[in-house]
Amino acid sequence: MVDKPFKRPIGIFDSGVGGLTVLKEVERLLPFEDIVYFGDTARVPYGNKSKSAIIRFSTESALFLLKKKVKMVVVACNTSSSLALEHLRRVLTVPVIGVITAGVNKALSLKSQNRIGIIGTRATIASGSYEREIHRHDKKIKIYAQPCPLFAPLVEEGHLKGKVVDEIVDMYLKNFKKNHVDTVILACTHYPLLKSEISKYLKDSEIVDSAKEVAHYAEKLLKDKKLLNNQRKRGRKTFYVSDEPAAFVKLAKLFLKRRITKPKIVNV
Amino acid sequence: MVDKPFKRPIGIFDSGVGGLTVLKEVERLLPFEDIVYFGDTARVPYGNKSKSAIIRFSTESALFLLKKKVKMVVVACNTSSSLALEHLRRVLTVPVIGVITAGVNKALSLKSQNRIGIIGTRATIASGSYEREIHRHDKKIKIYAQPCPLFAPLVEEGHLKGKVVDEIVDMYLKNFKKNHVDTVILACTHYPLLKSEISKYLKDSEIVDSAKEVAHYAEKLLKDKKLLNNQRKRGRKTFYVSDEPAAFVKLAKLFLKRRITKPKIVNV
Repeated sequence: MVDKPFKRPIGIFDSGVGGLTVLKEVERLLPFEDIVYFGDTARVPYGNKSKSAIIRFSTESALFLLKKKVKMVVVACNTSSSLALEHLRRVLTVPVIGVITAGVNKALSLKSQNRIGIIGTRATIASGSYEREIHRHDKKIKIYAQPCPLFAPLVEEGHLKGKVVDEIVDMYLKNFKKNHVDTVILACTHYPLLKSEISKYLKDSEIVDSAKEVAHYAEKLLKDKKLLNNQRKRGRKTFYVSDEPAAFVKLAKLFLKRRITKPKIVNV
Repeated sequence: MVDKPFKRPIGIFDSGVGGLTVLKEVERLLPFEDIVYFGDTARVPYGNKSKSAIIRFSTESALFLLKKKVKMVVVACNTSSSLALEHLRRVLTVPVIGVITAGVNKALSLKSQNRIGIIGTRATIASGSYEREIHRHDKKIKIYAQPCPLFAPLVEEGHLKGKVVDEIVDMYLKNFKKNHVDTVILACTHYPLLKSEISKYLKDSEIVDSAKEVAHYAEKLLKDKKLLNNQRKRGRKTFYVSDEPAAFVKLAKLFLKRRITKPKIVNV
C-alpha cells in the first residue's frame, strides 16, 4: 500500500497521554505528515519503574510502530528517551529521535545558562541523561536536578492550578529559587501543562519545553533524509493505546485542546 | 513437596506494595502461616485503568500464586477486589477473599453509620462495589463516595504529613466534613498510612481500615475449612514482584516497618 518511504507516517510513542504535547508540536510544524501515535496506557507510568522494565516497554512500543510502517520513531517520553534511546537505536531500522538532545540544545542557545535546572520523573533524573548531554557541551554549567513525581499525577487529574499545585510547586522548586536557577528544562511531557504555574513561581527563569524543540529536530531530520511528505493535504492522525481508550480520549482534550479520532486498543 | 493442603502458604497479591498493609495484619493474626506475596510492580497502579485491564492483570497475578501452590488467595488490592473478584472466584480452584466485604461488615458493626464515606482509587469508586455491598445490608444508609487518586502517589513518595498532604486531604475530604460523615472506609491499601492525618481532619468520624478486617476473614475461612497451619514456628514470607525489586524493598520498609527478604522478579 505504501509505495514511497517519504509517504509513510511518523511514529510517536509515549507511556501514555503525555506524548500528545509532542504530537501537538509536530503537527503544528509538519501539518502534511501522517502520524501514528501509540500510548502504553496499560503500563503507564514508566517514570518510577526500573531501567530494564523501561527498556522492555519502550522496545515493544517502538516495534509496534514499526509494524505500522513508520519512517521514523519519535520517543516522546522523557523517561524512555533517558533510559532506552541507545537500545532503540541499536534495534530499530528507522531513524529514532528522543527529546533530550533537542531540549538541551535549546537550553544552551539561551542567553543565561550558568545554572540549569532539570525537572522530570524519578527514573529520568536518576539516569543523569540530561546532565551528561549538557556537560558534553560545557562542563562548567552548574546543574540542579529535581525529580517531581507528583507533577504527572497532578496533570492527569486535571489539577493545573490552585492551592494543591502551589504547595507542590513550592516543595519541588524552592531549591531552584534559592539557587537562582536561570534556565529550567521541562524533562517530562506532562510538565508543559504546568508551565504557567512554574513560570509564576520562578519569575526570573527561562523555561524550556522539550516537546517544542523535538518537533524542529524531526523536521530537520526528515528534510536531511529527503523523507518529508509532499502531499498537500492535512496529515492523518491515528491513535493506538494498550488499555481501554475512554480515559485517554478525555485527557487528550486537555492536552490537545481538541477531540481526537477514537484510538484502537492493541496488545503490545 | 507439599503434602497436606493446610501446610500450603496463603497467597496475597496487590498491584504493588500497598498490599503489604494486608500482609502485615495477616502475619500479626496468623503468625504460623507461610505467605507468598506478589506485587505487580511493572504495571502498577491499577486504580486508574480500565475494568478489562484490571481483570486481566488480576487474573495473571492470581494464577501466578496458584503456581506457588497457595491454599487461598487474598486479593489485597481494593481495585482488583472491586472489579475482578467475581471473575477470580469463577476461574480459581482455591478460596478467594477480597477486602470489600470485610471492610463493609466492620463499618456496619460500628455504632454510628448513618453516613458512610468511602475513599479509594477512581476505578474502585466508579465500580460502586462498596455501595452495593452496604446497600445489600441496609438501603437507608447514606453513602458519600470520593475518589482520591493523589493519595497513593503521596504515600509512595513518603509524604505522610505536611502542607502538601494537608491541602490534598482538604481537597478530597471537605465534602465529608460538610456532610458530617460519621464512618469512613479506607478503600485502598495505601490509605492506612495517611490514617492519622485523615482522623485529624475528620475528628468526629470513625475510620475503618479494610486491611485489618480482611485478616480476620482469612482466619475465619481457614478455620472453617480446616486449613490453618499447625506448625509452631514463625511462617515463611516469600515476595515476588514483576519489576526490579529495589523500589519495592525501600517502600516495604515504610509499609511494614521492617526489612523483608529480597523479592524475586517474575514475568506474569
